[in-house]
Amino acid sequence: MHDTIAKVRKFRDERDWQQFHDPKSLAASICIEAAELLELFQWLSPDEARREAAEKRERVSEELADVAIYLIELADIAGIDLAGAIEAKLEKNAAKYPVEKSRGVWTKYTDLK
Amino acid sequence: MHDTIAKVRKFRDERDWQQFHDPKSLAASICIEAAELLELFQWLSPDEARREAAEKRERVSEELADVAIYLIELADIAGIDLAGAIEAKLEKNAAKYPVEKSRGVWTKYTDLK
Amino acid sequence: MHDTIAKVRKFRDERDWQQFHDPKSLAASICIEAAELLELFQWLSPDEARREAAEKRERVSEELADVAIYLIELADIAGIDLAGAIEAKLEKNAAKYPVEKSRGVWTKYTDLK
Amino acid sequence: MHDTIAKVRKFRDERDWQQFHDPKSLAASICIEAAELLELFQWLSPDEARREAAEKRERVSEELADVAIYLIELADIAGIDLAGAIEAKLEKNAAKYPVEKSRGVWTKYTDLK
Repeated sequence: MHDTIAKVRKFRDERDWQQFHDPKSLAASICIEAAELLELFQWLSPDEARREAAEKRERVSEELADVAIYLIELADIAGIDLAGAIEAKLEKNAAKYPVEKSRGVWTKYTDLK
Repeated sequence: MHDTIAKVRKFRDERDWQQFHDPKSLAASICIEAAELLELFQWLSPDEARREAAEKRERVSEELADVAIYLIELADIAGIDLAGAIEAKLEKNAAKYPVEKSRGVWTKYTDLK
Repeated sequence: MHDTIAKVRKFRDERDWQQFHDPKSLAASICIEAAELLELFQWLSPDEARREAAEKRERVSEELADVAIYLIELADIAGIDLAGAIEAKLEKNAAKYPVEKSRGVWTKYTDLK
Repeated sequence: MHDTIAKVRKFRDERDWQQFHDPKSLAASICIEAAELLELFQWLSPDEARREAAEKRERVSEELADVAIYLIELADIAGIDLAGAIEAKLEKNAAKYPVEKSRGVWTKYTDLK
């Protein structure tokens, strides 16, 4: 992940764009790009969405990247180690949803937030 | 990034939760978590948001992780290499926003989508 | 609609809360509440979502109201007549999607934005 | 509001589009349109957002209308009286935020959800 983060940072800094990056605007940008990703599946059933994701992998890939880039930029200006944050959250979720009680269980799953 | 992705995948598969993961529901989940992240800064000015991100780094970190986990899961079921997708998008953006014309330039920046 | 708008305005002004209402924060708030609404259906298929909406009408009703209240507040501070805006947009959509060519047509429908 | 709702319903039914309207897809659509509205203010400070809303009232008006139309359509298929829902929510909020304790108070305000 370090390499990718370094590239995102380089892209931003070469253009001197960090000045525009307050956390609220970056969080808004993550929402905006996430909605563009969702738009690809706006009216589809789960099965249709699966087919769409396979047929338009390139589009999905670009929209995913847009979300990820802003995510990396927000972590960066907030001094957050993204990989560490993900692992810490997985551990917290693991405590909340022990394997033996959660396996394939929908009701537990829908509580996960 | 491979390590982190492997941990996300392990968490999901130990609980047999991939069955709930169609791309539309995952894209919706990214939106939902992105909105919870935005909520931390809902009524703040850019400077207040910067202070909030510093003071509540733990909360920001958890919300960022939630978005990232769903992002990794969507990339995973769609067969997308997330690091590769980010680098491809940065190259596309670099072609669209050449350094010499984009440095510190707001009007270019606001066009970036 | 005038009555409802008047009540939203009265609620806000009795508490002197308009000072917090810049358009960006209100648009962010609409996103945040819209995501809470979406969360009610996060992992459901279309049919499950229909059942859920019937069984939890009270919850859906509250989340819809939250979105609507911020929508009315944004229209209000921007000097926009919401009913007029809706009718103007319907006319624009009607020109873009003539009845005879759009009836039951999915491909047209998915273009509607 | 009855008139506006009737027009939204007529637009939809003339095109036989209700078949695409499950609650999850409509909630997703509200998110998507809300994000397009937020995009108008993506990188702006509160004061810049106020100026933007005044200068681009037409654009803001269209994006607001898009959110409102899907909101009305979701209320419609869920059998929810939108004006009633708004008034019920205002009463609930009023009980939670009594005027005398909430006037101009930021800390109360930021708790309002």
